[in-house]
Amino acid sequence: MYDVVIVGSGPAGLSASIYAKRAGLKAVTLERNPMSGGQVLNTYEVDNYPGLPGIGGFDMGMKFREHADKLGCEFMEASLLKIEGSAMPEDRREQDKELQAASVKDDTSAGYALVTDQGKLYAKTVIAAMGASHAKLNVPGEEELSGMGVSYCATCDGAFFKGKVTAVIGGGDVAVEDAIFLARGCQKVYLIHRRDELRAAAVLQKEVLALPNVEVLWDTVVEKINGEDQVEGISIRNVKNEKKEELPVDGVFVAVGIIPSSEVLKGIADCDEKGYLIAGEDCVTSAPGIYAAGDVRGKKLRQIVTAVADGANAVTSVLQYLSEN
Amino acid sequence: MYDVVIVGSGPAGLSASIYAKRAGLKAVTLERNPMSGGQVLNTYEVDNYPGLPGIGGFDMGMKFREHADKLGCEFMEASLLKIEGSAMPEDRREQDKELQAASVKDDTSAGYALVTDQGKLYAKTVIAAMGASHAKLNVPGEEELSGMGVSYCATCDGAFFKGKVTAVIGGGDVAVEDAIFLARGCQKVYLIHRRDELRAAAVLQKEVLALPNVEVLWDTVVEKINGEDQVEGISIRNVKNEKKEELPVDGVFVAVGIIPSSEVLKGIADCDEKGYLIAGEDCVTSAPGIYAAGDVRGKKLRQIVTAVADGANAVTSVLQYLSEN
Repeated sequence: MYDVVIVGSGPAGLSASIYAKRAGLKAVTLERNPMSGGQVLNTYEVDNYPGLPGIGGFDMGMKFREHADKLGCEFMEASLLKIEGSAMPEDRREQDKELQAASVKDDTSAGYALVTDQGKLYAKTVIAAMGASHAKLNVPGEEELSGMGVSYCATCDGAFFKGKVTAVIGGGDVAVEDAIFLARGCQKVYLIHRRDELRAAAVLQKEVLALPNVEVLWDTVVEKINGEDQVEGISIRNVKNEKKEELPVDGVFVAVGIIPSSEVLKGIADCDEKGYLIAGEDCVTSAPGIYAAGDVRGKKLRQIVTAVADGANAVTSVLQYLSEN
Repeated sequence: MYDVVIVGSGPAGLSASIYAKRAGLKAVTLERNPMSGGQVLNTYEVDNYPGLPGIGGFDMGMKFREHADKLGCEFMEASLLKIEGSAMPEDRREQDKELQAASVKDDTSAGYALVTDQGKLYAKTVIAAMGASHAKLNVPGEEELSGMGVSYCATCDGAFFKGKVTAVIGGGDVAVEDAIFLARGCQKVYLIHRRDELRAAAVLQKEVLALPNVEVLWDTVVEKINGEDQVEGISIRNVKNEKKEELPVDGVFVAVGIIPSSEVLKGIADCDEKGYLIAGEDCVTSAPGIYAAGDVRGKKLRQIVTAVADGANAVTSVLQYLSEN
């Protein structure tokens, strides 16, 4: 029986690992992939984490993990499939006979059983730090050509498009950062945004608008991604004048938002309409002993600095729960 | 007229500087001392800021400041004496004729005038990141012998007591960290705590209790610090058996808590009973356009990770305020 199982090894999960270890808790951190860092890994450069100016996302993931390793934190490569246990709200257990049976059978008492692809783990508390993933455009050709010119990570795949023409879809920080990154190697980059102004930070907007090989297509949506075995172009439409156009591009980078990875906790802890786990600064969810940290939590600002704060706050809440239960 | 004046250059202020600069705001950060880092500077080692394991407090302050410098953030060495301005709540301005007159005279419109020892600055918004300072024991001899054996910073002054006998007063993380630090150089260290258990993290407790030259005096309070021109000893009392004792020591390190540096905002923004500025995760105080970030904010966990998160959240709130006003 672990004091706490931390699910996810992005900045929130790694910060929670570090704080849990220093607090003397019996803790393990589950990571789905063989690399720590979460979305940070797919970030070309991070320049807003104080003390590590201009660090590469991959290097940052490594540094965070090395920090946890140095302190002797325990990790396990495993995917969390399901959470069972008697600490779940009574009415919800009653709704689900199987879960109820499981909770009796496993004798989890006040804790939870975490079913993973590597077997079951038992924990008094859980820190949910599963993060989030990229939203899709949901247009014809997107799924079919994914990995064949359609990408959700400019940092990962941008190098394949050196000297070619690409399109970035979106208007937020990530979309603009992607366009700036791609402009370094691509012959031409279209930044396609459905509105007439970008949501990205002013400094990023200024930078992207000054690049000679970036063209912003305002008020424009992508209706279809075209190509046989490889992206050949996109069908776009101007939402103001309804003009349609075929744009030849070699690659499409989708940067239209993120989806919280909260599925495994649905029905256990309350989520908001976008799927984020509802929890305040103390990371306390509606499920006793379950805490939400990082991008999976409903909050205003999803940044590395707020994720590492969540990790520390979640462990503080765990310590309080353990001393009271 | 600045978009935002950031008061204080500890982790919260420096994070706010970095975020404000990247957001394209006209910002300046005021620092009272010629060094950035705040309380971090007085910390021997920081091991819970992910990515910088086991870094010295001084080095961390330097790294954070270098990061801000690299981005071109503006700094000013100045002490904030008073805040004036028409953005202050109507009823409070009416109570203070002088302030009311000042706000008209200075034509600060919706902003604030910050009176510093280097002159006046005008700002649309203020991020209060003044941090906190060390609490006193308030016993005879403490003030008289301050700097002559009485210290509030083991990291700063510990080296002066090599081979000598010292006492650390307190039971929290800082007290225990101080005792561990001093034990490296001192012949003997007493850790004096008024309760029968330490509040410090388990891992720190384990470490300090294993040190052969550290003796914990439980249930004990210091009643007097003795000495003429130099600390010679302390008068202690066991609160359980009322036994009094004279303990010869060469140095006394006081680590009994912190006091928020919120004085300049008293009467302008609401504070709690301990003097912390009342603000949620978004750092919004009761005064329009004034935000509280870091240790000066009333919150559960005061750590570097939560301070840097505050800096980012405060700038996000500033951006929202500026776009609405």
